[in-house]
Amino acid sequence: MKKPLHRPWKVLSSEYLANRPWFTVRREKVELPTGAIVPEWYIFEFPNWVNVIAITKDKEFVMISQYRHALGQTHFELVAGCCEQGETVLQSAQRELLEETGYGGGEWHEFMITSPNPTNHNNFAYTFLATNVERIAEQHTEAGEDIEVHLMSKDEVLELLHSDQIIQCLHAAPLWKYFASEK
Amino acid sequence: MKKPLHRPWKVLSSEYLANRPWFTVRREKVELPTGAIVPEWYIFEFPNWVNVIAITKDKEFVMISQYRHALGQTHFELVAGCCEQGETVLQSAQRELLEETGYGGGEWHEFMITSPNPTNHNNFAYTFLATNVERIAEQHTEAGEDIEVHLMSKDEVLELLHSDQIIQCLHAAPLWKYFASEK
Repeated sequence: MKKPLHRPWKVLSSEYLANRPWFTVRREKVELPTGAIVPEWYIFEFPNWVNVIAITKDKEFVMISQYRHALGQTHFELVAGCCEQGETVLQSAQRELLEETGYGGGEWHEFMITSPNPTNHNNFAYTFLATNVERIAEQHTEAGEDIEVHLMSKDEVLELLHSDQIIQCLHAAPLWKYFASEK
Repeated sequence: MKKPLHRPWKVLSSEYLANRPWFTVRREKVELPTGAIVPEWYIFEFPNWVNVIAITKDKEFVMISQYRHALGQTHFELVAGCCEQGETVLQSAQRELLEETGYGGGEWHEFMITSPNPTNHNNFAYTFLATNVERIAEQHTEAGEDIEVHLMSKDEVLELLHSDQIIQCLHAAPLWKYFASEK
């Protein structure tokens, strides 16, 4: 397969418009190798994100649901969250699973890396596959979280995927990879 | 399967911080059903997005590569773009495939709907599966685009997916769905 040409853009100017948690934005004026100038390119800066395909000893998937304010809808999702300073991505994923569901233990493997959107997000999302997890604690969510835990069979997860009910693409991508690779 | 509880948040205040193409942002103060108040929730408003799994009569996948400035990297991707005013999502997808690659014709089916991120994006991404497409025109890109077209076999696309080289989750999700459903 031919390697794609790598033609970086030249940054003519760059300034921060905001620097808040969940809203750190840089505006850049850029020049393409074609000579075209784009006066406003917006880059959203985030820490890396993590999510987990967690499966119990009884082969049940540990899923969650929560209201998502930007859409005004509630969907099924994987456990997911942000990397905090000083954590490895594995530690972040294990912490999020424990906080959001009370599940932990088991065997953990890095399963997939995606970009939320390479156009305007500077971060990556790491998916872990955790097998043989067990309920080891109470759920312990943060102020901005209101999370319901659901244990599902493989067939129930597949049914949700086929009907676009796991709508968050950061979660649909690794779940579809899991089922494509399993066969 | 148990339906998830739908517990919407109450908007206490809402204001636009910016209203530019690719940077329209609303900040809201919200109250959760738990009683918790989140003083700053940021919502990025975008038009709906489209992307296309396009396959020629010879069973080759019409892929592209382009430099993505937020990551500073070049990756393989599906053809993708924004819905313009007055277009159906199908028309947008057909226009983007024609502009970015010169391919068109064939049979088109809606294949998947995802959310780029229901936490902070108000839009959806529609994936179409276009089969039996043909080269019918020259590539015709916009000022901010510098796009290389690649025809690939199914095995080449799968190899890229398995090695996380199709990193954009909006594109990895439908491609993995395609290969999971094909088997």
